[in-house]
Amino acid sequence: MRTPADNAQLALLLEVAGTPKPGNVDRHREYDDLRFEHFLAGSVGAGAGLRAAETDASVGAAFEECVEGMSQQGGGNTQFGCLLNLVPLVRAAAAERLSPTGVREVCRRTTVADACGFYRAFDHVDVAVGDPPADLDVPDVRRGADAVDEIRERGLTLWDLMELSAPHDGNAREWTDGFPRSFSVADGVLDGEGTATERAARAFLELLAGEPDSLVAVQHGPAAARDVRARAAAVGTDLDAAAELADEFVAEGINPGTTADLTAAALFVALERGWEV
Amino acid sequence: MRTPADNAQLALLLEVAGTPKPGNVDRHREYDDLRFEHFLAGSVGAGAGLRAAETDASVGAAFEECVEGMSQQGGGNTQFGCLLNLVPLVRAAAAERLSPTGVREVCRRTTVADACGFYRAFDHVDVAVGDPPADLDVPDVRRGADAVDEIRERGLTLWDLMELSAPHDGNAREWTDGFPRSFSVADGVLDGEGTATERAARAFLELLAGEPDSLVAVQHGPAAARDVRARAAAVGTDLDAAAELADEFVAEGINPGTTADLTAAALFVALERGWEV
Repeated sequence: MRTPADNAQLALLLEVAGTPKPGNVDRHREYDDLRFEHFLAGSVGAGAGLRAAETDASVGAAFEECVEGMSQQGGGNTQFGCLLNLVPLVRAAAAERLSPTGVREVCRRTTVADACGFYRAFDHVDVAVGDPPADLDVPDVRRGADAVDEIRERGLTLWDLMELSAPHDGNAREWTDGFPRSFSVADGVLDGEGTATERAARAFLELLAGEPDSLVAVQHGPAAARDVRARAAAVGTDLDAAAELADEFVAEGINPGTTADLTAAALFVALERGWEV
Repeated sequence: MRTPADNAQLALLLEVAGTPKPGNVDRHREYDDLRFEHFLAGSVGAGAGLRAAETDASVGAAFEECVEGMSQQGGGNTQFGCLLNLVPLVRAAAAERLSPTGVREVCRRTTVADACGFYRAFDHVDVAVGDPPADLDVPDVRRGADAVDEIRERGLTLWDLMELSAPHDGNAREWTDGFPRSFSVADGVLDGEGTATERAARAFLELLAGEPDSLVAVQHGPAAARDVRARAAAVGTDLDAAAELADEFVAEGINPGTTADLTAAALFVALERGWEV
């Protein structure tokens, strides 16, 4: 039997193998400097941290270990956001509490030490984040471990950080809301048809059509993120049309990374709920 | 830092991702009943057994655990032979003795209990093996755990079994000879050019051109295996020509599985020797 950490690792692999996943690296598409193999190595490297998340290690420490291991490859940041989502989900699953309420409780109980682990994780890899919004009163994550003293002085927990970031970030919203989109899309994966890589692609398309992608908003602005969402909604789950959209997004430099993070979370939930690959 | 077990898992993933790999599942090719995703799940499932191989667990017990975990997916046997090669290599690497002499010593020290673990592993998955050759005086592996009593009575070690099988089986030859082909091809991976999946494909092509594949010999006869070797030699490491050969082999039902097993071993050695993905 695969453990929750195994299922999280498999979710990372199925996420990147899912094709076509417009704008992201998939089984058939990659960029010169960010290739499929980097995601394979990232998935393997994250293993020890994911296994730590099954135990009493703090969420922040497990996440930092995941990111440090993930970063041991030449492509840079491959799965930072995926791991941010997977760590509390693995913890909830290991405690046999994998439900929106159960994982929200894991997140809500995170501490100041967890917030420090989260900031330290940014030192291991170059994460694509923009300038913090003017109304977001938390230390710039790009400061990494240098922000730890301020986090401690202000007594900010990881939950606090995610709650403050939720208006701007799709992963933070999922984190503080009990992963509603991940659980919902997981049902579609379980009930869906086709191979595992097709189901992963449809999960991605469903999530992309649901809400504007945060990373696209950071990199290209909110209007572009709304446009991407609308174009994904027009495609639906038609994989041939999605392949055309993938060519367009690559040409336009559109990379809906947050949607990939949520896809990994949805695939994990599906695997834990009995999806047989 | 990735541990030897991590590198073995990554070798499994890079092996299947390597493309084009004529006749085998790769990043761009699969069969209806044996798909890319089954190899991803097999790699994850083997993780606990590979980690056991880093410790004092016996080679046979670690191998059986690998195979049991690998088999938890819908494609049947994905990586039995790969794991047979990787387990002693992981053990040697964990003891900082990853050399032909070091791994041969690990293999030579295997016991009757290891042989029993090897036979039990056949109960977890349907391995493509033919009738044993008339001159091979060992219990039919297809008997699985039922053969354990006979193995014990005759005092056969896993080394004994591999030595007896070496004339008929490329993996057994590699096992008893100190993995000479794996170490040699690993040098080419380290010194080669191109992406990781291209290097994996070239490693496969070099091995396929080197000796007739044992699985092709079992499934199609020794003449077919010699023909496959010659055609691979004509292609060399030209990946465009290899893609054409891949189409031919799929049409002919040619599946050089033993060569994939050796490729995984070569990729593992390259990773342990500093190949940066």
